[in-house]
Amino acid sequence: MHLSPLKQRHSYFEFISNLTRLGKPPLVTTTTTTPNETPMLKLHGDARSTCTKRVATILFEKAAHFELVPVVGAASKSAEYKATMQPFGQIPVLEDDGYFLYESRAIGRYIAEKYRDQGTMGLIPNGDLKEMGRFECALSMEATQFLPAELLAYEAAFKPFKGGKTDPAEVARLTSELAAKLDAYDQILGKTKYLAGDSITLADLYHIPYADMLTNLLKSDLLTNEAARPNVARWYHDITSRPSWLAVKNGVPASA
Amino acid sequence: MHLSPLKQRHSYFEFISNLTRLGKPPLVTTTTTTPNETPMLKLHGDARSTCTKRVATILFEKAAHFELVPVVGAASKSAEYKATMQPFGQIPVLEDDGYFLYESRAIGRYIAEKYRDQGTMGLIPNGDLKEMGRFECALSMEATQFLPAELLAYEAAFKPFKGGKTDPAEVARLTSELAAKLDAYDQILGKTKYLAGDSITLADLYHIPYADMLTNLLKSDLLTNEAARPNVARWYHDITSRPSWLAVKNGVPASA
Repeated sequence: MHLSPLKQRHSYFEFISNLTRLGKPPLVTTTTTTPNETPMLKLHGDARSTCTKRVATILFEKAAHFELVPVVGAASKSAEYKATMQPFGQIPVLEDDGYFLYESRAIGRYIAEKYRDQGTMGLIPNGDLKEMGRFECALSMEATQFLPAELLAYEAAFKPFKGGKTDPAEVARLTSELAAKLDAYDQILGKTKYLAGDSITLADLYHIPYADMLTNLLKSDLLTNEAARPNVARWYHDITSRPSWLAVKNGVPASA
Repeated sequence: MHLSPLKQRHSYFEFISNLTRLGKPPLVTTTTTTPNETPMLKLHGDARSTCTKRVATILFEKAAHFELVPVVGAASKSAEYKATMQPFGQIPVLEDDGYFLYESRAIGRYIAEKYRDQGTMGLIPNGDLKEMGRFECALSMEATQFLPAELLAYEAAFKPFKGGKTDPAEVARLTSELAAKLDAYDQILGKTKYLAGDSITLADLYHIPYADMLTNLLKSDLLTNEAARPNVARWYHDITSRPSWLAVKNGVPASA
């Protein structure tokens, strides 16, 4: 793995700079509804944020139409936003005809449940107790075992972007911790095609934003090294080549 | 909040020492089954571990009989354990008549689903899409927003216990981060009795082990300071006084 702080910082600024050249996401202020029609889903978030992309990926998987309502920079930190939209001052927030929901993983599950019969089927298995247990286990793995990936992104990319200084020792510690976790992933993915069985579920998809960031922005080979972890590499290429991710990886579109 | 490294280390050793005086959990080697009877649930774990206690709390809530199969110290780190029981080398693991499941939150959900009609009702709401959304949001909050509590426990208790040195700056950073998160919890708990509404769910119960550890072992008042966060304090005292937690807080019993 190659993670010199200089290279990380450079590539992250380059990334942001490229995005800026592409222009800011358009500000959406109108709602496309007609009488007797359910208002379109609104995704309040930032086109470039990992958690906004996590939700948008699920929206694309389920062929659910939505519009992005940009919440960028410090907008989510205001007292008003915290009082009315999201008490932790974070993005994204889903708005569905007057119902508001936050926490990207909860939003993804809400979408997968609401549009159960369209788009990709089986993102939430419709199975027996034991199959659901495996699914819940895989969901929990993403939130807990894969956490070093998120912390690594913070240390190597978000922290210097916010004016802090990457700690190389912390990067080394998290890299080593994540490598050990991915060894276990390789064992699991040697038995089944996806984390909860042979069909893709929300649990696989939820890994994509940080897996892609580690690989393409931070230039880590933790997820792609076929010699070290052949099953993880196969799985990584599979999930990150899905049309849903390709539709959002360079920025969530203003509407879909 | 009072968290001097010296005090933490002292109280943690005192805690362990008290446990040792009470005796190690008995080694359970027999299975209490008779023909035509479903074998009892086996909880492979450590009587003193936070995640083992998280699962045991749900077992007590659902009045589900179980026996504890002790996995202590480095036993979960062996190649055999990782190959056959839990690829990440962790506890707990639930064994249910030949079916094995790990990740404490997934196990809790499996138990709450399997024993839906006994013990405490409604731990998984049986509600509409929107109610389920709020439940999933609350579950995700525990895993992500409450994470500083777990990291604080690591830094102030587990790390020195393992021979490392608590970093006071890290303790201060995590304390401040958790305080901000709990301000948002106070806002949420000012509107509803529990995190996902006015009935207790898995999401509330999953907070208990680290909430209790911060308060009683690390002597933090983050969760109990009524002047600072009256709703959090009310909620903390409510969830930690439940018989299910009182049954496991000083060590998960060998069977129940």
